[in-house]
Amino acid sequence: MRRAFVSALLFAATTLPAFAQSGARLHEYIRPFVGTKGEGNTYPGPSAPFGMVQLSPDTDHELWDTASGYEYSDTSIMGFSLTHLTGTGIPDLGDFLFIPQIGPVKLEAGTKADPSAGYRSPFTHDTEEASAGYYKVRLDKPGVVVELTAGERAGMMRMTFPASDDASIMTDLHHMLTGKKWKVAWSRVRVEDASTVTGFHLTNGWAKERPIYYAARYSKPFDRFQIYSDGKPVIYNTRRFRSAREAAGTNLQFVAGYKTTAGEKITVKVAVSGLSAAHALQNLDAEIPHWDFEKLRDATRAKWDQELSRIQIEGTQEQKETFYTSVYHAFLAPNLYQDSTGEYRGFDQNTHLAKGFTNYAIFSLWDTYRATHPLFTLVQRDRNRDMINSMLAHYDQSVDHLLPIWSLQANETWCMVGYHAVPVIVDAFLKDPKGFDGKRAFAAIKRTATNPDYDSVAAYDKLGWVPFEQENESVSKTLEYAYDDYCVAQMARALGLKDDEAYFRRRAGHYRNLFDPSVGLMRGRDAKGQWHSPFDPHHYDEDAGVNDFTEGTSWQYSWYVPHDVPGLIGLMGGRTKFTAKLDELFTFTEADKSTGVSDIQGRIGEYWHGNEPSHHIIYLYSMAGQPWKAAERLREVVTTQYGSKPDSLSGNDDCGQMSAWYIFTCLGFYPVCPGSNAYVIGAPQVPKATMRLSNGKTFTVTANGLSKENFYVQSVRVNGKPLERPILPHSALEDGGTLEFTMGPKPSEWGKGGMEETKP
Amino acid sequence: MRRAFVSALLFAATTLPAFAQSGARLHEYIRPFVGTKGEGNTYPGPSAPFGMVQLSPDTDHELWDTASGYEYSDTSIMGFSLTHLTGTGIPDLGDFLFIPQIGPVKLEAGTKADPSAGYRSPFTHDTEEASAGYYKVRLDKPGVVVELTAGERAGMMRMTFPASDDASIMTDLHHMLTGKKWKVAWSRVRVEDASTVTGFHLTNGWAKERPIYYAARYSKPFDRFQIYSDGKPVIYNTRRFRSAREAAGTNLQFVAGYKTTAGEKITVKVAVSGLSAAHALQNLDAEIPHWDFEKLRDATRAKWDQELSRIQIEGTQEQKETFYTSVYHAFLAPNLYQDSTGEYRGFDQNTHLAKGFTNYAIFSLWDTYRATHPLFTLVQRDRNRDMINSMLAHYDQSVDHLLPIWSLQANETWCMVGYHAVPVIVDAFLKDPKGFDGKRAFAAIKRTATNPDYDSVAAYDKLGWVPFEQENESVSKTLEYAYDDYCVAQMARALGLKDDEAYFRRRAGHYRNLFDPSVGLMRGRDAKGQWHSPFDPHHYDEDAGVNDFTEGTSWQYSWYVPHDVPGLIGLMGGRTKFTAKLDELFTFTEADKSTGVSDIQGRIGEYWHGNEPSHHIIYLYSMAGQPWKAAERLREVVTTQYGSKPDSLSGNDDCGQMSAWYIFTCLGFYPVCPGSNAYVIGAPQVPKATMRLSNGKTFTVTANGLSKENFYVQSVRVNGKPLERPILPHSALEDGGTLEFTMGPKPSEWGKGGMEETKP
Repeated sequence: MRRAFVSALLFAATTLPAFAQSGARLHEYIRPFVGTKGEGNTYPGPSAPFGMVQLSPDTDHELWDTASGYEYSDTSIMGFSLTHLTGTGIPDLGDFLFIPQIGPVKLEAGTKADPSAGYRSPFTHDTEEASAGYYKVRLDKPGVVVELTAGERAGMMRMTFPASDDASIMTDLHHMLTGKKWKVAWSRVRVEDASTVTGFHLTNGWAKERPIYYAARYSKPFDRFQIYSDGKPVIYNTRRFRSAREAAGTNLQFVAGYKTTAGEKITVKVAVSGLSAAHALQNLDAEIPHWDFEKLRDATRAKWDQELSRIQIEGTQEQKETFYTSVYHAFLAPNLYQDSTGEYRGFDQNTHLAKGFTNYAIFSLWDTYRATHPLFTLVQRDRNRDMINSMLAHYDQSVDHLLPIWSLQANETWCMVGYHAVPVIVDAFLKDPKGFDGKRAFAAIKRTATNPDYDSVAAYDKLGWVPFEQENESVSKTLEYAYDDYCVAQMARALGLKDDEAYFRRRAGHYRNLFDPSVGLMRGRDAKGQWHSPFDPHHYDEDAGVNDFTEGTSWQYSWYVPHDVPGLIGLMGGRTKFTAKLDELFTFTEADKSTGVSDIQGRIGEYWHGNEPSHHIIYLYSMAGQPWKAAERLREVVTTQYGSKPDSLSGNDDCGQMSAWYIFTCLGFYPVCPGSNAYVIGAPQVPKATMRLSNGKTFTVTANGLSKENFYVQSVRVNGKPLERPILPHSALEDGGTLEFTMGPKPSEWGKGGMEETKP
Repeated sequence: MRRAFVSALLFAATTLPAFAQSGARLHEYIRPFVGTKGEGNTYPGPSAPFGMVQLSPDTDHELWDTASGYEYSDTSIMGFSLTHLTGTGIPDLGDFLFIPQIGPVKLEAGTKADPSAGYRSPFTHDTEEASAGYYKVRLDKPGVVVELTAGERAGMMRMTFPASDDASIMTDLHHMLTGKKWKVAWSRVRVEDASTVTGFHLTNGWAKERPIYYAARYSKPFDRFQIYSDGKPVIYNTRRFRSAREAAGTNLQFVAGYKTTAGEKITVKVAVSGLSAAHALQNLDAEIPHWDFEKLRDATRAKWDQELSRIQIEGTQEQKETFYTSVYHAFLAPNLYQDSTGEYRGFDQNTHLAKGFTNYAIFSLWDTYRATHPLFTLVQRDRNRDMINSMLAHYDQSVDHLLPIWSLQANETWCMVGYHAVPVIVDAFLKDPKGFDGKRAFAAIKRTATNPDYDSVAAYDKLGWVPFEQENESVSKTLEYAYDDYCVAQMARALGLKDDEAYFRRRAGHYRNLFDPSVGLMRGRDAKGQWHSPFDPHHYDEDAGVNDFTEGTSWQYSWYVPHDVPGLIGLMGGRTKFTAKLDELFTFTEADKSTGVSDIQGRIGEYWHGNEPSHHIIYLYSMAGQPWKAAERLREVVTTQYGSKPDSLSGNDDCGQMSAWYIFTCLGFYPVCPGSNAYVIGAPQVPKATMRLSNGKTFTVTANGLSKENFYVQSVRVNGKPLERPILPHSALEDGGTLEFTMGPKPSEWGKGGMEETKP
């Protein structure tokens, strides 16, 4: 891929390129391959911002390490499916695979080892291109060039064929990103007319029960067509089914057959819906009434220009590529999940009409509450409101009376821990109180946070912690509940609900109950209060069954008190011991011996940047009065774990959280504690950034003197006034303004006071 | 069953009971057990007229001979499901089985041989009652009395429990009437609140792909509940699904657990929908806002009183029971298939709103075009209009551009042959031209009748017959197409479409091409015109693969030219030979040796009344000038193959066709050729009948002197004028009037002229 690999030093020794605001085609900086090699689990195919379809090549449908369907190291492509998850650790979607073939049709993909056994085709990156709204590859086996572009609910595939009497485009309804154990439970396909097909499959995957429909219109009427079911052609049968135009079953393929001339292009327009084939067709015709591939591609690129312009930076080519690609990744999910009619499949599987909001789905909340949604609150306020209203609708439809945990279309996957819809809603409410109905939201939050059926919340409420013998990941759950409860209390305070505030403020302190002073770390306790023994603070083994921590160790989770860092510092014996302990974290190696964590990389000692529990930890240096250590570690992570190459991401992008961390970090501040209305100052990584806030105001960050060597903050001015402590209140930027850093080559005295010794 | 088995002579030797029009509670004559023993394949449970739900006990889910789920000879009941087909030869439906249990819950039914292995319970007919809108039985194993009643889209089950700490009501979503090879492809259940459950299953049965939803409200909140999936309790799982309140999978059960006191009654209100759980719940709450079991039952009985009053008869108790039960069976299907919102699942699986009509489904057209729909045209005109509009919507939604063949909810089963939606529509159009859009209907009819993809219609059009080497059941198809084409021509004529009329009039004569004069019978031909050899005119073996006839023999099908009986008489050598040949039919026994026809009984020689191809044949005697022979055979069939007992039906009731035959026959005339606007006079079987026509007019039939001995027609007067020939034009009754028969003990001269020697 030629464009993605422009080689550039992160910081050119001489002058930085001029910031070209006017006429900037920011989408040209997007490098969709970032994160496709290794653990990033992103996909290279086109998507509109927060779009419902993501047309992209699939090279694998089984491996969790290839959860998006595409791994850059693979050398063959199964085909091109219409939907993809971005950066998740578990596969799903990959609905409706399209693959051109020449000659006898193969109905199964074949293997990576032997693509010739199936429809899978070898390819090379030489022929591959990925840019905003566009993907292109040559499939070597059929000799067909495939181009993809995508709008919001619909996309286009353009295939350039060789001359053949036996060319075809197959749709495999049996394909999905299954992760080895899941399956298509049912499917249907129907040839609506000589150039239109609709279909459906009900998948039993990570999302337990997911019906999704598609519609496809072909630019050229079929010369012939054939449906296959369980490997056999669906034909007229004089004794039973007498239609060759539709079929239902668990393993269906549709083949559009053509006689092609050399270089003949055939375009397929596709759309999906969660509701019905009719809705999919309506989505298709509403969004792409034409056959102009470039028109759709350019419209999507214009959307990306608009979205990227919300935060514009100065910097090197590679910085811009890395930054704008991060913004691109942060703006891919949550995904639109609503038809052009305004209808969508609710969490109760019924059809709902979204009144007053646009419905979004795919909420990777354990990840995205940290930095992605706080970023949205700044520059995607309207969409964030829609997302919150979507979550409230989900709550209304939830049989368990819970806000989403990790929702995937109309399913709760129950993935990860906590109830982190709460910080998303509270953070947005405190910064944007008119964005949604606060009282309704608080009712949903309170019921969620006190749901006795969910993950030992009842025991947590009663005992003050989740007892390890009763519940897996008991320490992580206790700590995350305590933080979420802090957020509930914050919202109760804003609403003047004193009893609720006091109740949840008390629970927010439950983190203290799991701090074992004898080891100076967080540790599991049973219902009787006994510490979990034996205790290995570096132990993590997700396959072991009972485990007190979520994808991590005690040493990593012991830092998880984002809402009461002063309290945590106190527990750990004061600032000196606290920062010394932080230093230790970055030098440990013991936890590397743990099993089951191959997909969490980006390791600096036991700081694992490739997974979310570590994401706030570097900023704790600033809060404890050692911002220069934060600056060092931030620079280390930014330069070694981000970039514009396929392998530039060190862990799952997780629907944009890894990228959102980068964005905030470049800007010089980070939301350590969403819901607190404060950011923590780190160290800026780009010379200038301009945020167009959603309220129309502009907030500009400058890093004077920033260079490869000058990455230490010397002083900070906010709106022209010196900022002594490394805490940036949201109030300082919400009306626009300036954040001016002066950078230098050595640690300075700035920020040695740390945060004030009060709770943020 | 006490009430059903009132013993009464068919014709009491003395006086007949007086006809009590005023205050008649006609529903009391309904005997729902008729047809439940042997081949009738009816169900005993309650249904509203043409209702969407039919709550009924299931004793078997596999045997085609128990297609309705209930066989009177069985001694144990699996449970009570919500939907049933009436009188079909193939099982389907049986959605959502409810069964009370005491003690440890069993999740599988067990076997007839060993009910104790499962939830199946022994029962005896002593404790069983079935009447209009009501069914009751005591399940011996749990000692629970179950009562059922049904409205249009919703019903109620009332269960009377013994004292138990461990009583339960289980819903088995895995149950359906599968016929051994079919299955539930997917299902879902959800505990909406402490006394409400919704569920769904997608079945892959006779109907290939049928999603159906239910909702249930329980009169008593659950003391406990448990969902099971694949035999295991669905419980909180700390690593994956964390809800015990909902589940999805292929084998689900829901158990509502109760502590009960002796005699405690728990009522469950249930409803179904083809669209969603929300629609099912809406149907439930709209139709049964109360908990009064008797109120719903009595409302349904009042509906039956209203429906039965359309044709009132005088006669003995058993005659009334037989007649009104026949009307009941004729008015059970087609079935309402539309939610209370007016929405329904279309044949394209999309949601549609029925505009200007009520949507019906389950069209057993090969059967019901013969007498059921002609009966509807007389006394159910508005519903018949709705049914035709439903069929036209089906056509619009059909990917194959076909009117329904044998449609089952939103599926085409492709069962049987021909395109007999055509005679239904044409017959109705000629009698009720303003009932629907004739031009639209004709377009659908013409396209259906010329569809080149369907069952060798193209070859039939080109050659003049369906070649046997190309298509199974080639002779039956040719003959039935020719009749259907006659109907198309009739409609074309009515619309003034001369070219179309000529085209289809020509095709209507195609029956002649398969009459082999060398054997004097209909016989298969190949595409070159060669007769199919060897030829056994009595052969029928449906399991043999290639077979030229549909569920019958050449000797039976050779009479199938309903639209040109004079032409057929000519081919067969004139009236004398024709009637002699008819005589032969009733004395043959050879075809009894055929295999695969165990479910077609009612045999008189090779006349098999238990299946539809024979239904018009007796009336051919009248048309050929020997009405006294018709009278003899009609009396024979009526007295030996109909009655008020469980085994009174000799063959599948086929959604009411067997019953509609009886109704017309009792009235003394029969629609041998729907679409001709003529009926053929047979011999009345009840002393008086009064039809309240749908146009408000009254048509009265009297059979003066009718008795056990006096079953020969001596003379006939229509509207006071003598009728010399055995043809009753529709015009003679459409404005109301009288049909007066004088009956006698011996054949008379009346009718010897037969029909006029022109086409009817």
